[in-house]
Amino acid sequence: MQNQKKESCNTQKVNSFTQIDQMPKGRIKSFFAGDEVRHAEPMIDIIFPSVAFPSNKIFKTIGEGRIREMVWHHHELLLKTKVGKLFPANKEAFKMTVDATADFFIEALGGENIFTSVHGEPKLRVRHFKIPIDENDREIWLSMYKKTLKEIDFPKEHLEEFWNWIEPLSIRMINRRTNMQNIKRHYWNDVRISF
Amino acid sequence: MQNQKKESCNTQKVNSFTQIDQMPKGRIKSFFAGDEVRHAEPMIDIIFPSVAFPSNKIFKTIGEGRIREMVWHHHELLLKTKVGKLFPANKEAFKMTVDATADFFIEALGGENIFTSVHGEPKLRVRHFKIPIDENDREIWLSMYKKTLKEIDFPKEHLEEFWNWIEPLSIRMINRRTNMQNIKRHYWNDVRISF
Repeated sequence: MQNQKKESCNTQKVNSFTQIDQMPKGRIKSFFAGDEVRHAEPMIDIIFPSVAFPSNKIFKTIGEGRIREMVWHHHELLLKTKVGKLFPANKEAFKMTVDATADFFIEALGGENIFTSVHGEPKLRVRHFKIPIDENDREIWLSMYKKTLKEIDFPKEHLEEFWNWIEPLSIRMINRRTNMQNIKRHYWNDVRISF
Repeated sequence: MQNQKKESCNTQKVNSFTQIDQMPKGRIKSFFAGDEVRHAEPMIDIIFPSVAFPSNKIFKTIGEGRIREMVWHHHELLLKTKVGKLFPANKEAFKMTVDATADFFIEALGGENIFTSVHGEPKLRVRHFKIPIDENDREIWLSMYKKTLKEIDFPKEHLEEFWNWIEPLSIRMINRRTNMQNIKRHYWNDVRISF
């Protein structure tokens, strides 16, 4: 990876698949079978954007109980979508999953280390590898969070900080690509009007 | 993507998930809930390496018939592996798939445009999006090619050129990530001894 990184950044030679997808037609065909070997450039898929981890202000304002309610509310909405099929069908296993997620949110927002003391490092991307998560699953997950935040009356003054965390964070769970497009961003400035 | 690319390459700030995975423990936890918002850096997954497209020498040596035999041989081996389940179960549909792949190989190696005249641009990554292909599926695909090249007695003097094409090309079909590791390379210098 060291060499590849050098190759990419020092020579600025790495394009993304999204860029290639937008190139004029006929480009790839031209690689075919000349008199000599021809090299197609290295390529990256997406850049997973920076993630803004929230301060402890949210936890100080709403506390453990309401964070737990929020996570449960979100998962109950998810169950009504196709993303629901990615969760354990067994009720007890489902409850364990949601409780662990709630523990994570509580700790990440400023509570006690109730997640890491039991489960170790978050490693959210790694934890989700066993489940195929595509771009559309992430869209659903995020839109159900928007609905949740409205329905539980999340404090307006902390919405931006929370949203700026979960929006890019959710991109990092994508492990199944189904198209060449960039991952859709839902910037706070575009979604704030929904709240 | 333009801005993201700038962010990554000009400031050299984009690391890969593989690098993060190898960092000392405790790093991610430190992002949790300080007094202020904290930013985790943008990240990339893998760099898909350069692909060396072969010259027309292979086609000139072995011709259309043997290329078609090679592709059929490879697919018959794949059917005996778990990758076989990714192909159509219907015999006629399977035959159409393999024939199209053979057309692609014939054209890519220097034959007539029998693939692009029917199917349009190759866009191999796009064509495979509907099928989840993970790192291990690619390992199987490639190892069955190694077996094929031995079993069909592919001309030794063209092996390197052919291998240097399919080895990196196969990485571009991966659309389902199941771990943080770099994709395993099988460089010609390491595999030549098998032939």
